Parts: sequence; C-alpha cells; structure tokens
Amino acid sequence: MIRVMGITRDHRVERGLSLEDTQSPNYVWSWVDFNAPSPEESEKLDTFFHFHPLAIEDCLHVLQRPKMDHYEDMQFLVLHALDPDTLGTVEVNLFLGGNCLVSFHQRAIKEIDEVWEKMDSRLAHRKKWDRGIYAAAYMIIDALVDQYFPCVYAVEDELDELENRGSSESVELLMNQVFDLRGRLLKLRRTIVPMRDLMYRILNSEHIQGEREPRAYFADIYDHLLKLSDMIETDREMTADLRDSYISLNSNRMNGIMKTLTVITTVFMPLTLIVGIYGMNFAYMPELQWRYGYFAVLGLMVMLAVWMILAFHKRGWFK
Amino acid sequence: MIRVMGITRDHRVERGLSLEDTQSPNYVWSWVDFNAPSPEESEKLDTFFHFHPLAIEDCLHVLQRPKMDHYEDMQFLVLHALDPDTLGTVEVNLFLGGNCLVSFHQRAIKEIDEVWEKMDSRLAHRKKWDRGIYAAAYMIIDALVDQYFPCVYAVEDELDELENRGSSESVELLMNQVFDLRGRLLKLRRTIVPMRDLMYRILNSEHIQGEREPRAYFADIYDHLLKLSDMIETDREMTADLRDSYISLNSNRMNGIMKTLTVITTVFMPLTLIVGIYGMNFAYMPELQWRYGYFAVLGLMVMLAVWMILAFHKRGWFK
Amino acid sequence: MIRVMGITRDHRVERGLSLEDTQSPNYVWSWVDFNAPSPEESEKLDTFFHFHPLAIEDCLHVLQRPKMDHYEDMQFLVLHALDPDTLGTVEVNLFLGGNCLVSFHQRAIKEIDEVWEKMDSRLAHRKKWDRGIYAAAYMIIDALVDQYFPCVYAVEDELDELENRGSSESVELLMNQVFDLRGRLLKLRRTIVPMRDLMYRILNSEHIQGEREPRAYFADIYDHLLKLSDMIETDREMTADLRDSYISLNSNRMNGIMKTLTVITTVFMPLTLIVGIYGMNFAYMPELQWRYGYFAVLGLMVMLAVWMILAFHKRGWFK
Amino acid sequence: MIRVMGITRDHRVERGLSLEDTQSPNYVWSWVDFNAPSPEESEKLDTFFHFHPLAIEDCLHVLQRPKMDHYEDMQFLVLHALDPDTLGTVEVNLFLGGNCLVSFHQRAIKEIDEVWEKMDSRLAHRKKWDRGIYAAAYMIIDALVDQYFPCVYAVEDELDELENRGSSESVELLMNQVFDLRGRLLKLRRTIVPMRDLMYRILNSEHIQGEREPRAYFADIYDHLLKLSDMIETDREMTADLRDSYISLNSNRMNGIMKTLTVITTVFMPLTLIVGIYGMNFAYMPELQWRYGYFAVLGLMVMLAVWMILAFHKRGWFK
Amino acid sequence: MIRVMGITRDHRVERGLSLEDTQSPNYVWSWVDFNAPSPEESEKLDTFFHFHPLAIEDCLHVLQRPKMDHYEDMQFLVLHALDPDTLGTVEVNLFLGGNCLVSFHQRAIKEIDEVWEKMDSRLAHRKKWDRGIYAAAYMIIDALVDQYFPCVYAVEDELDELENRGSSESVELLMNQVFDLRGRLLKLRRTIVPMRDLMYRILNSEHIQGEREPRAYFADIYDHLLKLSDMIETDREMTADLRDSYISLNSNRMNGIMKTLTVITTVFMPLTLIVGIYGMNFAYMPELQWRYGYFAVLGLMVMLAVWMILAFHKRGWFK
Repeated sequence: MIRVMGITRDHRVERGLSLEDTQSPNYVWSWVDFNAPSPEESEKLDTFFHFHPLAIEDCLHVLQRPKMDHYEDMQFLVLHALDPDTLGTVEVNLFLGGNCLVSFHQRAIKEIDEVWEKMDSRLAHRKKWDRGIYAAAYMIIDALVDQYFPCVYAVEDELDELENRGSSESVELLMNQVFDLRGRLLKLRRTIVPMRDLMYRILNSEHIQGEREPRAYFADIYDHLLKLSDMIETDREMTADLRDSYISLNSNRMNGIMKTLTVITTVFMPLTLIVGIYGMNFAYMPELQWRYGYFAVLGLMVMLAVWMILAFHKRGWFK
Repeated sequence: MIRVMGITRDHRVERGLSLEDTQSPNYVWSWVDFNAPSPEESEKLDTFFHFHPLAIEDCLHVLQRPKMDHYEDMQFLVLHALDPDTLGTVEVNLFLGGNCLVSFHQRAIKEIDEVWEKMDSRLAHRKKWDRGIYAAAYMIIDALVDQYFPCVYAVEDELDELENRGSSESVELLMNQVFDLRGRLLKLRRTIVPMRDLMYRILNSEHIQGEREPRAYFADIYDHLLKLSDMIETDREMTADLRDSYISLNSNRMNGIMKTLTVITTVFMPLTLIVGIYGMNFAYMPELQWRYGYFAVLGLMVMLAVWMILAFHKRGWFK
Repeated sequence: MIRVMGITRDHRVERGLSLEDTQSPNYVWSWVDFNAPSPEESEKLDTFFHFHPLAIEDCLHVLQRPKMDHYEDMQFLVLHALDPDTLGTVEVNLFLGGNCLVSFHQRAIKEIDEVWEKMDSRLAHRKKWDRGIYAAAYMIIDALVDQYFPCVYAVEDELDELENRGSSESVELLMNQVFDLRGRLLKLRRTIVPMRDLMYRILNSEHIQGEREPRAYFADIYDHLLKLSDMIETDREMTADLRDSYISLNSNRMNGIMKTLTVITTVFMPLTLIVGIYGMNFAYMPELQWRYGYFAVLGLMVMLAVWMILAFHKRGWFK
Repeated sequence: MIRVMGITRDHRVERGLSLEDTQSPNYVWSWVDFNAPSPEESEKLDTFFHFHPLAIEDCLHVLQRPKMDHYEDMQFLVLHALDPDTLGTVEVNLFLGGNCLVSFHQRAIKEIDEVWEKMDSRLAHRKKWDRGIYAAAYMIIDALVDQYFPCVYAVEDELDELENRGSSESVELLMNQVFDLRGRLLKLRRTIVPMRDLMYRILNSEHIQGEREPRAYFADIYDHLLKLSDMIETDREMTADLRDSYISLNSNRMNGIMKTLTVITTVFMPLTLIVGIYGMNFAYMPELQWRYGYFAVLGLMVMLAVWMILAFHKRGWFK
Repeated sequence: MIRVMGITRDHRVERGLSLEDTQSPNYVWSWVDFNAPSPEESEKLDTFFHFHPLAIEDCLHVLQRPKMDHYEDMQFLVLHALDPDTLGTVEVNLFLGGNCLVSFHQRAIKEIDEVWEKMDSRLAHRKKWDRGIYAAAYMIIDALVDQYFPCVYAVEDELDELENRGSSESVELLMNQVFDLRGRLLKLRRTIVPMRDLMYRILNSEHIQGEREPRAYFADIYDHLLKLSDMIETDREMTADLRDSYISLNSNRMNGIMKTLTVITTVFMPLTLIVGIYGMNFAYMPELQWRYGYFAVLGLMVMLAVWMILAFHKRGWFK
C-alpha cells in the first residue's frame, strides 16, 4: 500500500493524496509511505522518484546495517525497528529529497502508523524546523527508538527479579533463565548499537540542512540510544556475574555432596569389615567364644564410628 | 517545594524570595531550587522560565544519561546523585541561563541542601568566577561527586578485609560477599562512568563561558571521577581474581575429598572381599581348618592395607 | 593464462586481445587478467608493465594483508577471496594504472570469471564513472565480498539450529559443533576484518580519482563488510554463551549423578552393616535366638531406609 | 621538615638556606623540599608561597591521581612513588613556579633524598636546560620511575621461576603464588598506568617551557613507563595462563582419581557379591557340597577380575 | 668488534675502513657496525661520534622498548631482533646522522651479518633513495622483521597439527602443548607489537627525510608486522578455544566416569544387601529352609539387576 500526505501552505495536513500530488505547488512538503508495498508499487521508487539504483537495491534486498548515504539530491537512511515479540529486526528506509519524504518498509509497523495519525497535532513543530521533512523524519526515528525501551526494561525487570530470588530454586532453571536473558540482550544489542552509531554519524555529519534545532533533537535520540546501549552492557555483565555465581554455587554444592558420600563411606566401610571378620568360618577364632565378645565388638564399632565423626568434625567438614 | 535565593550587588545572600524576584535588577544572580516539586510547581519550568520543551521533557520523564545540552539561551545539565543506601541513581537537572541557575530534582537531596546552606561562606569565590551561576553549579556538582567517595571506599574496605581473611571461612559465604561486591561496583560504575564522560565533554566544550578559572575547577572534579572509575575497574579485577582463587580453592578441596574417598575405598574393599571369602560356607575349604588360619588372614590383611597406603603415599596423594 | 579485454571508444567490449593492444589508442581502457599464470607469464608484470618491484614481490610471494599501496603512477590493491570449502584465503592483486586494470591471482576464481563474462551488460555504468578501470575494480571487489555472505549465513543457520535443539542431545556432540562453529568464525574473521579495514582506508583516502560516484559504491561495500564483521562478533559471543551454558548443564548433570550415587550409598551401607552384624558367628548373640528376630531386623531396615530417603527429600536432593 | 637549596649565579649549590632566601637575587633558582612536614610547616604553602587553594587542598587531603594542573603562574604536579614493601602508593607533589621548585611529600622518600644529595654532580645539565627547575623536576620524576623497575622485575623473576617449576609441587601452593603475583601486578598497575598517562599528557602539553631538550628527557621517562605497563599487561596474561593451566591440571588429576575409584569399585563389587552368595545359609545350595567348589569360585573370581581390568584397559582408562 | 663500510662516489662498496674514514670526502655515506663491542669500543659512541648522552645510555643499559627518538642532528632507533631459540629479544640500536649510519648490538646477529655481506648487490637501490643511510636502515629493519615469520609460522603449524589430532591422545599432553603455544605467542607478541607500533609512528612521522620512496618501503614492513600481529591475536584466540574444548572434553569424560561408578554401585549394593540378609544366622528364617529358596533368590537378584539397568537406560545414561 502506498499512502501520501501533503502539508499545505496554511499548515493543514491532507491525507489520501495521489503520488502526483507530491509535485503540486499546493503542498509545502509531503510524505509518501510505502507500507508493505507490492512489487509493482516498489517499482515506483525507480520509475516515479528516480532514486539512485544503489539505494533502491538496499531497500529491496538483504537486511542492511543502519546507515545514512548521501546522494546528489537526496539522503538515504536505513533504520531498524524492533519486533517486540521475537526481538528481530525490521528494516525501515527513508529517502529525504527536496520537499518529499519517502518511507519504505516491507511490513506494517505500528509506530509509523501512530506517527502518521499524530502528524496533525505535532505540526506546532513546523516553526522550529527549517524543513518539515526533517521534522517528520525525526518523529519516525524517535518513535522507533522509543519502542526499544520496553524491551530493554523487560530484561532489566527479569534480571532484578532473578537477583532477588537467590538460591531457593533449582539452579538449572535459574541458569536457563540467565542464558535466555543473555541471548535477548545480544539480540537487542545487535539492533541498538548500529542505530546508536548511525545517530553519532548523523550528529557529526555536515549534511543535515537546517541549523541548531534538528541537531538538538537528534542529540536527544542519540542520548537515549547511548543510555540503552550502556544498560545492555551493564546487564550483560550482571548476567555474567549471575552465571558465575551459579556455577560457583553448583561447585559448592558438589563439594557438599561429595563430603556426605565420603563421610558415609569412611564411617561404614571399616565397620562392615569388622562384622565381616567375625563372620568368617575359621575353626579357631578365640573371640567368638568369649562370653561378651559380641557386645565388645558392638561397643568397639560405636567407638570407632564416634571417633571418625569427631575427626571429620575437627577437619571442618560439617561447616 | 520551590525555594529562591538571590545574590545582591553587595554580595549578600538573600533567601526566601519569590520566583519573580529572579528578574529584579537588585540581584546579580539567583538560584531557584525545585526541591521535590509538585506537578503544579513543575509547570513553572515552562510557564515561567520558558525553557526548551526537550529539556523540560528530560526533567519530568524517564531517567536520563548525564549530559549537557546547549540551547540558544541556556545550558541544560543532567547529573546523577547516588542514593548511598541502595546505590541507585537520583537525577538532578540544572538549567544555566542568563543570570539564573535553576536546579530541579524529584527527591530532596542532602548534598544540595548543604550547598544551599553553605552558600554564604563560599561567596569568597565570587571574585574568581566570571559568572556566579557557574560557581554555584560547580559547588553542586562537586558536592554530588564528593558523595560518591564513601560508597567506593566502603567497597574497597570490605575488599581489603576479604583478602586478609583468606581461607579460614566457609567458601560459600566468601563467594556471596565477592558477588555482592561485584554487584555494588557495577551499580557504582553505572553512575560514575557517565558522569566522568560528561565532565570530559564539559572540559572540552567551547560553551563554558568565563576563562581559565572554571576550567581548573571542573578539571578537578574530572580528576576525582577519573580516580573513582580507575578504582572501580581495579576493584572489579580484584574481585574477579578473588572469585577465581575461591573457585580454584574449591576445586582443590574437591580433589582432597575425592582422594580421601578413593583411599578409603581402595583400602577397605579388598579387605572386605577377603573376609567375605572366608565367610563362605563351602564344605571343603582347607584354610578354615588351619590352626592359625585366622591369624594368618588377619596378618595378611594388615600387610595388604599397609602396602596400599604406602603405594598411595608414594604417588603423592597425601601431600 | 593471460587474457585481455579492451573497451572501444564506442563502448563495445572486445575480448581475446594481446597484451600489446592495451596500449593501442583504439581502446578507452583495458583489463588484463593474469589467471593462474605460469612463472613466465608472471614475469610480464615486470618486463611489460614495469610495475614497482615491491608490488610485484607482494604478488608473487607470501600471503599479504589486504592493503592499498600508492605508487607514483599506479595504485596496487591486495584483496582476499574466500575458498568456500576450506574457508581459507586466496589472494587477488589489482594494479590500477593509467587506463589499464591488471588483475593477478594464482588460482582461477569463479567470481572473477563471472565479472569477466558479465562485463558487457554492465557497461551501462560507463556514464557514471569517470574512469572505467575503477568501475571494473569495484565490480571485482563487490563480487568477492558478495561471496562472503553465504559462508557467514551458513554459520548463522547452524547456530540457530543449535540453539533450538537444546538439551535433548549428547552434550559432547553439541560441544563439538560449537567449537567447530567458533573455529569457522575465526577463519572468516581473519579474511573479513582486514578487508573491512582496507575499505575504510580506501574510503578515507585522497587517492580515489573521480568524485562522488565511486565513493558511494565503495561505501556500499564497506557497509556490507561492516555488517559481516558485526555478525561474526555477535555469533562469536553467542557461541561463547552456548559453550558456557553447555558447561553449566554438564556441571548440573554431574551434581545429579553424584546425588544418585550418594543416596544409594547412604541408604545401603547401613543396611549392609546390619545384616553383616547378624551374620557374625559369635557363640552368644541373644537376638539370633528370638522368635521374630529376623522379621524385627527386616522391619528395622525398612524403617531406616524410609527415614533416610525422607531425610534426603527434606534436604531437597530430589528436586 | 622544610629544607631549602639554592643555585647561585656561578653554579654552586648551597644547602640549608631559609625560605626567605628563595627570593634573594643571589640564586638563579631554588628548591624547597617539604619532607614529611608538620601541619604548621604545611601552612607555608598558603602563607608564604600563596599557591592556588585547589592545589594546596590536593596536597593535604586524600590521595590524588597523578596529574598536571596549570595555574596562572605555576604548574602543579601530583606524582606517585612506590613503597617497595607494600607496593602501596606515596604521593609526591611538585609546584613549579617562577624560579622556584617546591616538592611536598608526607613521608620521607629515599629517592628524593638521593636526588637532593646528588644535585651537585649533575649540575652539568645546567647548560642543556633552559630553566633549572625543570631539570630538577626531571631528576625527581626519573628517580621515582626508576624505583618501579625492581618491583616489576621481582614479579617477573618469580613468574619465570614458577613456570619452570612445573607440576612437581602442590598445586594449591602454586595457585596461591599465582594469585599473589596477580594481586601485586594489579597494585603496580594502579601506580604505573596513571603515571604513564600523566607523562603522555605532559609530552603533548604546550605548557612545557623550554624547547626540544626537556621533551627528549620526558619522552625517555614515558618510554620507560610504557615498557613497564607493557610488561605488567603481559605478566597479567601469563599469570592468567598459568592459573588456567593449573586449573586444567587439577581437573585432569581429578579425572585420574575418579578413574582409580571407579576401577576399584567396579572390580571388587561383583567379587564381593559372589562371596556373599556363597556365604548364604540356605539349606539347599548344591555348589557348596562340590569337592572343588571353593577353588572353582576362586578361579571364577580371578577370571572376572582380569576380564574387567582388560576391559578398562581397552577403553583407555590407564593412559 | 667495530667494522666500517664506505660507499664511494662511483657506487663501490669498500669494507674494512677505519672510523676516521667515515669523515673522508671520498665516501658518499658510510656504515659503522658495533658488533658485540667491548666496553672500550662502546665508548667511541661518545668520544668519537658525540651522540646525545640519553641515546648512549639507552644503548648501553637496560632493554628498551622499540622507539625512534629525534635529536637535533640525528635520529636514534631502538629495534628488537628475535632469538629464534628462546624467542627472547635482542636489542639493535641505529643512529642515523648526517651521512653515517651507526648500528650497535651487544651480540652478533646473523641477519645483520647477511645485510653487511649483501650490501654490494643491493646497491641498485641507490638511485631510488635520496639518502643511502635510509636504504641501509630499511634493509636492516626488513631483515630483522623477516626473521619473525618462521617463528610465527612454526607456532601456526603446531596449532594446525593440534587441531587435527583431536581427542585421540592424552588430554594432559595436549593441554601442555596448548599452554606452551600460548606462552610462545605471548613472547612473540611482546617483541612484534612494539615493533609494529614503532613502524606506525615512523610512517606518521615528519622526520623521514626523502619523499615518497622510503615511505613505501616502510609501509611494506608495517604491513608485514600488522599481518604478524593479526596472526598472533587469532592464534591466541584459537589456543583459547582449544583449551576450552579440552576442558569441556575433560568434564564430559568425568561425567562418563561418574556414571559408570554410579551404575555399578547402584546395581551391586542392593544385591549385596540381599545376599547379606540370607547370610544372617537367625535361628528362625523360614526362606532358608525352602527347597528352591536359593534359586528363587538368585532369580530375584537377576531380575532386580536387569530392572535397574533398564531404568538407567531409560534415563539416557548410556548415551
């Protein structure tokens, strides 16, 4: 679907225009949104807008890194939206040329729909921006970046919860959760860090027309992305610490289990040997005939067991 | 609560003024402190001061990264105070515009109260600073950063203590402490490193009005933050070393436990087999009838046990 | 084999020329491909083209790092193709001088053959490039870099599959696969990262003749290489996470095995001792004569076993 | 103690002067050393020299990072000496202003005493330096840095020794030594790296008066610090490798111990079961009455034991 | 030994000159080689050449970092040769001043001898270099760097071999080899990385007299060093991967061993208990009198054993 919006000289927003209207002098600037376009619609990028073939290729083919390319008469932006369910990446392409902003994305994206709907109310910005298409591009990027926050916060919340639950649960379950969180952080970083690098390049680029104003807005987005990537790095380190603490917890528990096994074995093996000795069938075994031989052996065994347990206790095995 | 302070031409500090007084020519400069303001009070940022909407948004909403934004007629600083109990972060915002410093924080902060009270005595600085609001901003930042030190020192002290206690205690307890320290260092770093980066940007910014003097003061804060972040990095590495040494200690102990188990098993199993053999009920077992068979078997068992223990000793298992 | 291609003034491509034709004024530019040349053919680099001795040495001898060297009258590029079977590196050398592009590679390379064949159809580019040899060099580099993608995607696919298979299989097999993937990622990185660095240097070099146009094309290649190296880094971290999760899984299983062993030993050793006691041959053992002694002992043993299993259950060993 | 040295116009060194002499025109330049000064003496920094309050604060209070601050009429250096026993840090402060060098340190430092004594003989430098106070400052810094070398060499020597001793000793002892070395390397790095960074900043600073000459000398110190920090990094990696090799050695030994235990258990348990069977008291057990039943069972047990040992051997457990 | 070589105006090489000949106008440039000089010979650096005292000190004393120092009338280079047996470092110092190259090394170095002998044949370079001493310095550095390659290749070959041998051998032996390789890589890096950094500084220095030509040659050396350091980094990562794979292999084997132990124990302990029960000497044990009690018990034991083995099989312990 292709939808077209034009902003008239008296600052009204008109929706539902045709592609040709973008070149009408009635509109100060216009926004064309290729929303999950059909292959025929995609061809308009070439046949109607005559964009550079490299830029069109980047739109249509394999997933690109977020980037800004400068062509003679337009700028081309590749942006990454986040699919909140899979944490996968959805590509959004922006063409900024003359007085027309063209956005192109293969799947419908909720955030862009919202910007499309809200365009009216935000037109107050028109007096602060030299060129409206930059204001609209800012609104789109801002909406995409704002959508990263809930995903990162969800990870942070689970992490906090994990830290508080401590050792009361099965270590294996906790471990699985830690590795799941680490995987999600990696996926988020894969989207957020290239976006941050892109914003940095945009801020330091000489190609942003207009002055002070847009820079402050893009700096704001950059600060958000910087904060997000800081959070992700810290969270990665926290999960690594959690993982290491679980591993060491496991190893401590193993020590405890082995101690139990060793104490049991050490106490019972000698006793079993003793009772084995007096179970032998030798014709001449004097102790067997003693009146209280049986009770003497039982007493000896109790003393031996007590002595061994005390010895283990002294070596600190029961701490 | 909003409180207002004005500095008169003859260097007196007057407290308890109203917002309107900040525009009176009686005062060289003034400081307005939004101390845990109500929503209505917060609106004054827009209705009275007419600050930039992006800056106001940053004040009121989600936690920002420490940063300095330059707007046309004012500078906007986001700073992080540290909550000493939870090591969480509390945001402090400063607006520096014209001859008025506006500070904004959602919770009362002890350090800012102290600067507010001490303002009088420090007025000696007035002759060294070109503009008083920078001196006041420096005092606030300095107070916030000074408050980081006890938190980092507390970690360092516990770490020193841990190193000296050595292996006399339960490894599990020591481990828990190491991981607790690592977590606190991460939280501290999350606050301190962005503040350090902010100070670096301020030092290299062309926007600090006034000359040499403020730069020396901000450089001093930057050096403190650099030292703090160095300490945190070194402490993180020390805790990692401690963790690794505990893990290897654990693994050594496990080896010791397993050796005990193996020695016990190896010594007693053959003996138990021997006594089992002479406990069999075969009709024809010649040894059973020997006069000293019983004692011969006992002697054999002692010799076997001694030989096995010597063999283990030779292989170095008792070191 | 040496093959020569010339582009005539009327944009036709003529193949099968001789070396001397490259200097004929009939051709705007020409491409000489040393395709797995014999030693005698290789000498033409010196005797016919008179390239700089350092560049010729780099062609003929040990594997070089990807690089661009600037000599007085020509530029020398070392590129890396990837052998898709072994993930090893094959060196491709380009000399760009005057109106002649010379490519040199010790083994036939499928990608270069394809560019050679497709040259005709792409001549449309001739109007966008100031000098045809740069367009041809771009086509070669682009073909070599495009060939990296399937190798990296193959690794990603196996990695995704590994993540989904989870713990249902032998950990040893999974581990082997993880280490195999890590090894392949290292090999890919060894080729891709130096190529990326080379593209970066080319982009920032002042030596690219022609203007805007080539820069956009090389920037496109650089973005692909950047994306590839990002993918490799993230994949390395994912394999590290997988490895750590398998190690912790192994350690959890070990704990389970040891618990089984300890429970079995702890339950049966005391029971075995008891039956050993009543197997002793003492002349006077009152219990042996009791009417229900045997059943009393059996009952005692059952109670003891139940009590021990309950005790282990209470300590959470069966979770 | 405050001691004062003046260099006369005819290049003689006069010691034992009073503070006031530093302002006498008799002396080209002078050096005032605050050697472990009393609080009253420390006040001279303010009352006599009128240094900047920030610099004085840095002298008197908490340990600073090595740094160089530029004030209007003087430069202030914070340096770190190393206490060779504890590897702790001792702060040395230098004020370079006009023709007077002031050094300040809370504890007596052997290296500074030596520079003080040797000043005479090195006065040959006077013709190479534009200002004598820089030559003296260089001598002090050089002496402090030279003192780092024996500490680092001591660590390297122990490390070499550790590597050669190999596995002949108790792993626990070796481990303790490795962790001790790692701790000392961390402490050394904490002192040396900030000093290196300081030297780098000094080299790239525009504030060093005088030309070429001092730069060569400070570059020499910088190279030494660079070499020291390289050594420390490499040594940290070597200790990490040693630690990992010990851990893997431990794990190999554990494998060996467990194999012993398993072999013993596997061989003896079936044998013990067999002898137990023939120790049962059933009324009808035909084998018990066989003439050679006893010897047949003994033979069977030997065969079983040999077979099991061969089976283990075949599975490679005795390698 | 001091040896002197002079190049005459007609491009002949004369060897065996005296030190004084270096100042004769007969020679365009000369090379003085201090080859393992005696202390008296070393003094010529000061008494004959009057080099800067700092440079002479660096020659004679402790091992320096590779570096280039610029003095007023000469440049001073510290280079590192590699001792191929120990992988230790041998220092080579070059003084480039006026028309004289002075090389100084405390031990005879094979590579420098070769350059000395080959000087004749390479004089062809004289027309490409503005100053012959730079060509000679290049030849020396190139020879030293070329000698690094076999050492790094030797490590790579062993590493490839290790990867292929796989798990057929004793893990302990493989581990030792991995740690040996890691140690050698560290030693190589200690020499190669500072040399690479030096070449980088030389390339970006403004002090290389002469133009284009020397830069291309030094860039070639830099590329070699870059490739070597890349190889070392990749090899370090490969050894780390190998180490981790061996550790996980070990841990898998341990699991296997423990499973064997647990299965054996679990199967035999209950059986041993049963035979123990029927070995008790109670007066009244009805089963003992049954006609087929013995065979019933044997059958029960077989069934129990089979059931337990099936249970383990079901839980996947035999995979």
